Amino acid sequence: MAEDRYQKGIDKIQELTNADDANPTGFMDIGEAFADIAPDLSKYVVEFAFGDIYSRPGISNKQKVMTTITALVAQGKPQIGMHVKTGLSVGLTPEEIVGCIVHLIPYVGFPSVLNALNVAKEIFKEQGVSVKTSE
Amino acid sequence: MAEDRYQKGIDKIQELTNADDANPTGFMDIGEAFADIAPDLSKYVVEFAFGDIYSRPGISNKQKVMTTITALVAQGKPQIGMHVKTGLSVGLTPEEIVGCIVHLIPYVGFPSVLNALNVAKEIFKEQGVSVKTSE
Amino acid sequence: MAEDRYQKGIDKIQELTNADDANPTGFMDIGEAFADIAPDLSKYVVEFAFGDIYSRPGISNKQKVMTTITALVAQGKPQIGMHVKTGLSVGLTPEEIVGCIVHLIPYVGFPSVLNALNVAKEIFKEQGVSVKTSE
Amino acid sequence: MAEDRYQKGIDKIQELTNADDANPTGFMDIGEAFADIAPDLSKYVVEFAFGDIYSRPGISNKQKVMTTITALVAQGKPQIGMHVKTGLSVGLTPEEIVGCIVHLIPYVGFPSVLNALNVAKEIFKEQGVSVKTSE
Amino acid sequence: MAEDRYQKGIDKIQELTNADDANPTGFMDIGEAFADIAPDLSKYVVEFAFGDIYSRPGISNKQKVMTTITALVAQGKPQIGMHVKTGLSVGLTPEEIVGCIVHLIPYVGFPSVLNALNVAKEIFKEQGVSVKTSE
Amino acid sequence: MAEDRYQKGIDKIQELTNADDANPTGFMDIGEAFADIAPDLSKYVVEFAFGDIYSRPGISNKQKVMTTITALVAQGKPQIGMHVKTGLSVGLTPEEIVGCIVHLIPYVGFPSVLNALNVAKEIFKEQGVSVKTSE
Repeated sequence: MAEDRYQKGIDKIQELTNADDANPTGFMDIGEAFADIAPDLSKYVVEFAFGDIYSRPGISNKQKVMTTITALVAQGKPQIGMHVKTGLSVGLTPEEIVGCIVHLIPYVGFPSVLNALNVAKEIFKEQGVSVKTSE
Repeated sequence: MAEDRYQKGIDKIQELTNADDANPTGFMDIGEAFADIAPDLSKYVVEFAFGDIYSRPGISNKQKVMTTITALVAQGKPQIGMHVKTGLSVGLTPEEIVGCIVHLIPYVGFPSVLNALNVAKEIFKEQGVSVKTSE
Repeated sequence: MAEDRYQKGIDKIQELTNADDANPTGFMDIGEAFADIAPDLSKYVVEFAFGDIYSRPGISNKQKVMTTITALVAQGKPQIGMHVKTGLSVGLTPEEIVGCIVHLIPYVGFPSVLNALNVAKEIFKEQGVSVKTSE
Repeated sequence: MAEDRYQKGIDKIQELTNADDANPTGFMDIGEAFADIAPDLSKYVVEFAFGDIYSRPGISNKQKVMTTITALVAQGKPQIGMHVKTGLSVGLTPEEIVGCIVHLIPYVGFPSVLNALNVAKEIFKEQGVSVKTSE
Repeated sequence: MAEDRYQKGIDKIQELTNADDANPTGFMDIGEAFADIAPDLSKYVVEFAFGDIYSRPGISNKQKVMTTITALVAQGKPQIGMHVKTGLSVGLTPEEIVGCIVHLIPYVGFPSVLNALNVAKEIFKEQGVSVKTSE
Repeated sequence: MAEDRYQKGIDKIQELTNADDANPTGFMDIGEAFADIAPDLSKYVVEFAFGDIYSRPGISNKQKVMTTITALVAQGKPQIGMHVKTGLSVGLTPEEIVGCIVHLIPYVGFPSVLNALNVAKEIFKEQGVSVKTSE
């Protein structure tokens, strides 16, 4: 069963990131990065975060990643970029990602939003996508 | 033009809350509540938050309210209930609202999520809706 | 010397709150409230917070209390009311207190500001002061 | 295996809280409270929080609960009381609990510390314990 | 009317920053920086933040910038430097800026204050101003 | 008496950091760093933080540093590294430091924990210590 949860988590990560050898995902690196100080950490990330929580029914992958990005913007966490990239991978449009971040102005204020937009802008550039604007 | 933004904001609030005389919306009360100490506040809420930000294209009303709920959960703000109610009004299912809040466990921890679920549970009861669960 | 710092702190509290027997200050109650579990706490509040920090030159009492209110609004702390009352005592006008809180919208978002204005409104009512508005 | 993690979590909760029929623990109530809106939540609390994280080797139960209390004080969460009670149950002395909270003044400021001490004081009273003070 | 708010915002930015061709202001760069992903963002910054909020009567420019700096210190935002520079521009003395940041120790703790003082120190150096100290 | 508190603070810093000429402590640098803009700051750090708070009876040095690390992880402050180093100096094992940080996952979420583990990992490397893991 535990092995099931681990495999379920790995499968979910692949599904979210289209990860393969040519395009590895940062989520798997977490395990390697902390193998020497907290070898069980990768288990919690894969089994709990992805195998349990990201695998819950009820909301779509797009909704899950948008919710994640929002939480990271509200907290000013440096992981925003990794999840903006995942957002593009699951099919969020750049307009939806920007729309979600700008929507937060009345709830978290301008500074957090501007910082997050800077990160999103860089990921868009790195991934070669652009935002369709009506102006 | 400013009047346009005010009207645009009022229209957006109606659209989001299905507000009418029989079912008034808490968002309009903000203006009345602070008329004696900050009469311009209602203008900022209506014109900026609803006329500008909530009226932006790019993301749907359902996405906007889910983003709002997420930000309030991450910050532990008491306005969660009002926006869960708005979420139901714009068509978020109770499963989507619960799904969004539970999804936040790996990002904000259990205490914030449990506090928010308590609020959501009360709103669901008040609004007579229930969550379809697979168990 | 330590006694000096304690006396300096008490004097500062009196200066900030116009406290006397008929109008006692909440700051002195802190000591009594925790005498049985942390009797040294009142020393830190009086000596450090008021004897050291509030007694620093460089900014006025009005600036000090406005800075305090701002920090509490940004963090959503329940102590806002006590410091709004102190603000009135040191000569901040109700317009300055409301102005400071409303000014925070672009930096902390609407929910924190609305929560703080509710508290300020109650203190204004309790203290019998009203806000001059241009509308 | 999953059942093992659930049982491991339940055992850990019993160990931490000395829970039995006469003295039930609030942690088990979480499952019941959300059975109708998120029936899987109790699984995450029991299996992940208690079965995985609280069951990790490396730090003692006393250290785990003190770390928990500290995190909740730093964030101003209402769960402080439940964990102060757990702290007493695992053998933290009232002096250690107060010492940990007061130690946070230089890191989170006075308001968060005073709010937390109020909660601790009530739990101490409810549990019939008192703090040995040198003054 | 909307044009009026935009112009009002631009005028306020000029007033706050003494911006001209030889000494441009960072606030105007926000528009350019996000023109390709959120072209309406500059409108919200200029019209709402500066045209509406910074243009409110009730508190002085000096009070507005001090309030802004305080909020950013309390949240640990990287925009502190830009607003310390604006503070000097509107006539806050270096002593007032340092006084405001140091005053926050009892409310946000030492780490946030030390981080902010590091930023202020660099801006003072860059702007060629020094702090008059009594020691 | 004030001199006593200063000396008491210096002694506490030495005790916590084993500081000597060959191995100076970052805590003393705070005073020098801000001597030109806030010369009284070092007094507050040494006298209040170390002379008063770190010198309180009730909890051990190991508990004090673990509490400090926890607060900094919960807030995402850059001072984590300095206090991880102090933790090793007072006798916290690397397993206890990692255990404390990993224990925070259910309370602050994965991103804050991963960021803190990165910092701890670097300090461990710099200090030549390694974590004993059972896997």
